[in-house]
Amino acid sequence: MAKEETLFDKIISGDIPCYKVYEDEHVFSFLDIAPQSLGHTLVVPKESKAYVHELSDDAAAAIGRALPRICRAVMAASGSSAYNLLQNNGPEAGQSVFHVHFHIIPCFETKRLDFNWAPTNLTPDNAAVLVAKIDKFLSDEV
Amino acid sequence: MAKEETLFDKIISGDIPCYKVYEDEHVFSFLDIAPQSLGHTLVVPKESKAYVHELSDDAAAAIGRALPRICRAVMAASGSSAYNLLQNNGPEAGQSVFHVHFHIIPCFETKRLDFNWAPTNLTPDNAAVLVAKIDKFLSDEV
Repeated sequence: MAKEETLFDKIISGDIPCYKVYEDEHVFSFLDIAPQSLGHTLVVPKESKAYVHELSDDAAAAIGRALPRICRAVMAASGSSAYNLLQNNGPEAGQSVFHVHFHIIPCFETKRLDFNWAPTNLTPDNAAVLVAKIDKFLSDEV
Repeated sequence: MAKEETLFDKIISGDIPCYKVYEDEHVFSFLDIAPQSLGHTLVVPKESKAYVHELSDDAAAAIGRALPRICRAVMAASGSSAYNLLQNNGPEAGQSVFHVHFHIIPCFETKRLDFNWAPTNLTPDNAAVLVAKIDKFLSDEV
């Protein structure tokens, strides 16, 4: 189950330096060195998994618990009142380091995460198929 | 501390119907009716807060814990192997319903979350100022 050591494993272990902003038993957080905006921060689990869907309950819950306090601190430090959380899984989704990481990207009038929102329609037929498949998956997994 | 009731409060209470895919003590999840891609799903806390930085520890940890299993189910149902998590805080960040919601957006070759990655450089001076402010905020908040 071991995955290849990534840049973030080396940052967590201290082998590569970073601008650390937070650490607890399960979570490590540091400034992104190629920020999308002032205060851009990464929040990562110490658990070495590539994708969110691979995280243990403990690691996932700890990331969830840490996010609000780190967001409050990033807002205070950057002076932003709005922000996006973005987390990419898979190269097709824009992931480049294969260790789970949540981006906290403060939003400013002149600098923000630029994304194109392109809604479609959910038909009742499509919805029924998806709900049935998700229900079956979650029932089988328990 | 009460906020105005939103569409998602009404969905959680059952006053407005939805395509529900998951529910536990703290978390509710349903299909987005204006999907960015097949399987686009929302994960929301039952706690009625507008922004992630307002969430209680329990609600935030429960969202974190639920995300991996819902992501696995959405991947199985949609057939996607890659996906983005996006969560917007504030109208400037693209938020339109003011109840915390995480988007799970499956990624396909022809349909994905389209965002423009525009990295800048983090200077040591900027980093030092940010780290000091974040440290002070987190120390003061404890």
